[in-house]
Amino acid sequence: MYKIQEKEKKFILKAIKLSRKSIENGGGPFGAIIVKDNKIISKASNNVTKNNDPTAHAEINAIREACKFLNTFDLSGCEIYTSCEPCPMCLGAIYWARLDKIYFSNTKKDAKNIGFDDSFIYKEIALIHSERKIQNIQISSNEAIKVFNEWNEKKDKIRY
Amino acid sequence: MYKIQEKEKKFILKAIKLSRKSIENGGGPFGAIIVKDNKIISKASNNVTKNNDPTAHAEINAIREACKFLNTFDLSGCEIYTSCEPCPMCLGAIYWARLDKIYFSNTKKDAKNIGFDDSFIYKEIALIHSERKIQNIQISSNEAIKVFNEWNEKKDKIRY
Repeated sequence: MYKIQEKEKKFILKAIKLSRKSIENGGGPFGAIIVKDNKIISKASNNVTKNNDPTAHAEINAIREACKFLNTFDLSGCEIYTSCEPCPMCLGAIYWARLDKIYFSNTKKDAKNIGFDDSFIYKEIALIHSERKIQNIQISSNEAIKVFNEWNEKKDKIRY
Repeated sequence: MYKIQEKEKKFILKAIKLSRKSIENGGGPFGAIIVKDNKIISKASNNVTKNNDPTAHAEINAIREACKFLNTFDLSGCEIYTSCEPCPMCLGAIYWARLDKIYFSNTKKDAKNIGFDDSFIYKEIALIHSERKIQNIQISSNEAIKVFNEWNEKKDKIRY
């Protein structure tokens, strides 16, 4: 059983405060912060409807801000505090950004209870193509594979 | 078995062309387009390393552009063509954006073969918290639940 420290409680409360402020400002009820060496390096909330951007979840916004701040695409050594368990999109982004740890408060079940699709998307992602609600159609192409091979053979590529 | 139409082959080739162009311009080997009523409404490639943004996958960029173009966060009635099967982050974004259909060429296995983490992230997302490589810590809070309840009771909220 993980023993939660006082500073961690303090940080999660900051994310929760952002989620409340977000509602007041016409955004979705989610907030997130990113912390490095015990300092907050980014704060964000959900502005899907405000910005007409379905990817503008609090965690995605916080990651983008933190990367801008540190001038890198790699957030190793950083931790994210989010008012709600990340959805699959945000969890994916957290892996790509290589964050060290995720702290969250509300769960995906809590999100479902107030009308958010997180649980549904978690289920869909685990299914094979043919069983998903969105149709997935593969159009194989030698051309596409060739591009991958060119990337693979490129000497000066930046891995991420 | 889905019978692929000529126009679909044409569209996937556009996405593949963008993936090649992306390498030439110093981006990752991925391209995507979004189509509505047989017209391309957005084109994008991967610029994670160019923009220091780990969320800047081709599909995410294409969704953001299409939403800007149509002035909405809801892409119902649109289809995405992507040079490679979407990673979990992008698949999540596709669900949130409510796209109708996904066409792809290379698979997540092909992506793995050239060093991309898609398959790993798919596996991680399906695991329970305690089994994931990134530590997930819940800090329950009445305050967080209160914010969700406030959202739920808000009469003028915009659902998404």
